Amino acid sequence: MHSDINQVMLCDFYEFTMSQGYFEKGYANTTVYFDLFFRKVPDDGGFAIFAGLEEFINYIKNLQFGEKEIAYLQSKKIFSEDFIDYLRNFKFTGDIYAMPEGTPVFPNEPLIVVKAPAIEAQIIETAALVFINHQSLIATKGNRIYRAAGGRAIMEFGARRAQGEDAAVLGARAAYIGGCAGTSNVMTDMVYGIPALGTMAHSWILMFDSEYEAFKSYASLYPDNSIFLVDTFETLKSGVPNAIRVIKEELIPNGHKNYGIRLDSGDIAYLSKKARKMLDDAGLPDCKIVVSNSLDEYLIRDLVLQKAAVDSFGVGERLITSKSTPVFGGVYKLAAIEKDGKIIPKIKKSENVSKITTPHFKKVYRIFDKKTGKAQADQITLYDEVIDESKPLEVFDPMATWKRKTFENYEAVELLRPIFKNGQCVYDVPDVKEVQKYCLAQVDKLWDEVKRFENPHKYYVDLSQKLWEIKQELLSKHNY
Amino acid sequence: MHSDINQVMLCDFYEFTMSQGYFEKGYANTTVYFDLFFRKVPDDGGFAIFAGLEEFINYIKNLQFGEKEIAYLQSKKIFSEDFIDYLRNFKFTGDIYAMPEGTPVFPNEPLIVVKAPAIEAQIIETAALVFINHQSLIATKGNRIYRAAGGRAIMEFGARRAQGEDAAVLGARAAYIGGCAGTSNVMTDMVYGIPALGTMAHSWILMFDSEYEAFKSYASLYPDNSIFLVDTFETLKSGVPNAIRVIKEELIPNGHKNYGIRLDSGDIAYLSKKARKMLDDAGLPDCKIVVSNSLDEYLIRDLVLQKAAVDSFGVGERLITSKSTPVFGGVYKLAAIEKDGKIIPKIKKSENVSKITTPHFKKVYRIFDKKTGKAQADQITLYDEVIDESKPLEVFDPMATWKRKTFENYEAVELLRPIFKNGQCVYDVPDVKEVQKYCLAQVDKLWDEVKRFENPHKYYVDLSQKLWEIKQELLSKHNY
Repeated sequence: MHSDINQVMLCDFYEFTMSQGYFEKGYANTTVYFDLFFRKVPDDGGFAIFAGLEEFINYIKNLQFGEKEIAYLQSKKIFSEDFIDYLRNFKFTGDIYAMPEGTPVFPNEPLIVVKAPAIEAQIIETAALVFINHQSLIATKGNRIYRAAGGRAIMEFGARRAQGEDAAVLGARAAYIGGCAGTSNVMTDMVYGIPALGTMAHSWILMFDSEYEAFKSYASLYPDNSIFLVDTFETLKSGVPNAIRVIKEELIPNGHKNYGIRLDSGDIAYLSKKARKMLDDAGLPDCKIVVSNSLDEYLIRDLVLQKAAVDSFGVGERLITSKSTPVFGGVYKLAAIEKDGKIIPKIKKSENVSKITTPHFKKVYRIFDKKTGKAQADQITLYDEVIDESKPLEVFDPMATWKRKTFENYEAVELLRPIFKNGQCVYDVPDVKEVQKYCLAQVDKLWDEVKRFENPHKYYVDLSQKLWEIKQELLSKHNY
Repeated sequence: MHSDINQVMLCDFYEFTMSQGYFEKGYANTTVYFDLFFRKVPDDGGFAIFAGLEEFINYIKNLQFGEKEIAYLQSKKIFSEDFIDYLRNFKFTGDIYAMPEGTPVFPNEPLIVVKAPAIEAQIIETAALVFINHQSLIATKGNRIYRAAGGRAIMEFGARRAQGEDAAVLGARAAYIGGCAGTSNVMTDMVYGIPALGTMAHSWILMFDSEYEAFKSYASLYPDNSIFLVDTFETLKSGVPNAIRVIKEELIPNGHKNYGIRLDSGDIAYLSKKARKMLDDAGLPDCKIVVSNSLDEYLIRDLVLQKAAVDSFGVGERLITSKSTPVFGGVYKLAAIEKDGKIIPKIKKSENVSKITTPHFKKVYRIFDKKTGKAQADQITLYDEVIDESKPLEVFDPMATWKRKTFENYEAVELLRPIFKNGQCVYDVPDVKEVQKYCLAQVDKLWDEVKRFENPHKYYVDLSQKLWEIKQELLSKHNY
């Protein structure tokens, strides 16, 4: 739609007014540090899945103002020719650190750290948030749904209900990172190699004079992958019997084995058990049952508990929009600026205590217990602190400092990896299949208590003593 | 991101398996009729705003398979060379009827009718739904928020929380159609000419040694548009006093008049009234107050009722994702097929009564009372029925046929306009500003009872006698 416009314009207007301000006030070359982080896990879950990094990296690589973009800015008549000239030569020259895509992440820890000249760091704000907020939202939801299904495959089916084309295509990618097995979306398959699948809609059935003929025609065309949609008329009275008849007449005699039925309406627990019995009684225990119809992690968990006879789930709108919590509230906040070669930490206080930021250029360590392999806590430190694994590590709750815990025999893994150095990408972007693998392995390292859907255990995200002290000092200071 | 791939691949995989099926079974040239409609108004509102048509039209115009798309389909190894050859020459050759963008619309009436050869009508399903579902969702929410504000301007601020780039850019366009005055999103301004605005973020304040200096610097740069963000430290103790000082020192002496403050946290009703008093006491009654912070139609209505001192609202995530109802459940269903030159109506029964479709090639009339100008009801008729305005019109509830109503002195306006004829666009796509104007004028023609946010009056959408009879007949027939 707007493919001929550089993504640099996926930007809030104030990024430009502020940037010209930095330019005019002599801050163009001031190095600043921004953190991208979030404050609340969607669905009140115990953790989120970080995603969207690949899209962000591609965006940074292609960042520039062409003649079209320059002409637009000039038309606003508030930008000086000097500033416009600066933008003509604009590219990203800073450093970016980020967690790998697929990492389970927690509130208030930096997921991305940008160290760059003020204007560059400012202009990328909106796009960075769009990409990370969107894909982290859907990856998080996808992982919840994946975990609910207890090993049964989840197919992402939601394109038609997505909030626009990118939401459909990249949402399917994010859902895959979270653990989904595939998608209905062809574009996602073309771009990312995520398997696209699907068989028939109700319109197929209605095109024929009868449901039986519709099934039979389909089986003759796709004998190795026939999933019959059985609810166009009456599921148990017509759909399942017609499917059985076609499987027996067309598929079994010719040695085809990959067939099934899809239930798309009615009570899935009841219908799936009834259908299973009909299929088994007909000598078709291998016939798969796929279900769809307003599914999410709660309904899937209940269906599994109720022993619904389901082999795989197709999940639509509640996944592709993360319907129950459709917003991932990532923010991008100034944490420090450099002045005369020194890093000056910065804090935003706000009227809402929960909106107070953590200042300074920082690192994030994840503490794994060496015996169990489980993640115990994250500790946020200053950029130059190093955790000495040979010594016990005491952590404390930054909001309740008397709550302390000491770890021994642990491994401290740095989560933020260098992505860009002086504007050059220094990171090998992994294939999305690798990202999914990494994601599921990392989720396995969390305690079950953190994975509970409701009222999960709160994972520790603590500040180092030094960082905590700097934050306290800034909080008690007046900056106005 | 995927701009080098034709949008024809924004498609569910089953559209291709079914299309090959139509091709192989001799249905390639069978004319079919599909309806795009929805079943439930978001937020349980009284009506929705139809949007996304312009994007859909552009999509249809550009529909083709290039070598990239062909190569992908070949790689799947289930499509025949004959079918692939058919796709090489594929273009849309059918007719499309649609309501104008911005029309207030109701459940179960066709918003778009597609009459085309089976494969063409099938392949466009997913994309049509993505565009219409997304933009209608946000236009509907935007209109609710616009109506809540009672004439105060609404700025769409949500890009960073949108579900991807298209959601940000086209969501802002849809919000504008619903009545928003502008957006923060620069790309939307570039593409659609919807005014993008914005001034400063918290990072601007933190770049300077003090809030006062930050405001002063901004005022010197943008004296004709300075909205000072006053909540970085303490709104009433520092933010508002610093804004007053800078306005008096920098702006007023030089004759500048367009200034204001923005509140972005805390209790907006309380803070806005306090700030208003401080500004008035300082002799600045013209200083505008802009507020943001998790706003939606309910909070805005309450703020207006509580007489919060607000001149305009910035609305973010709750608008751009339609957070309270993030899905517009539009569907695309086969309504009829042609056989031997005759239209054969088709119905989908489903286990869920609410999912039963209305068969046949149809028209939609909106009945306006000539005296009040208000919309009274919509009547869905067969394609060849004409309402004779000189005669009284009796309508009845299709689910409760004893509920009847007769209209006299009315105007019956056809809502579905020809958009494509034999694959050629025959519609002058209006500018988005015209669409907004039309939308607000049409909403004005609805009774207030239909516009209530909660438990609105149910607007009548009835079937003509003839259509109702055809539906009853099909419902009583077995099709299996």
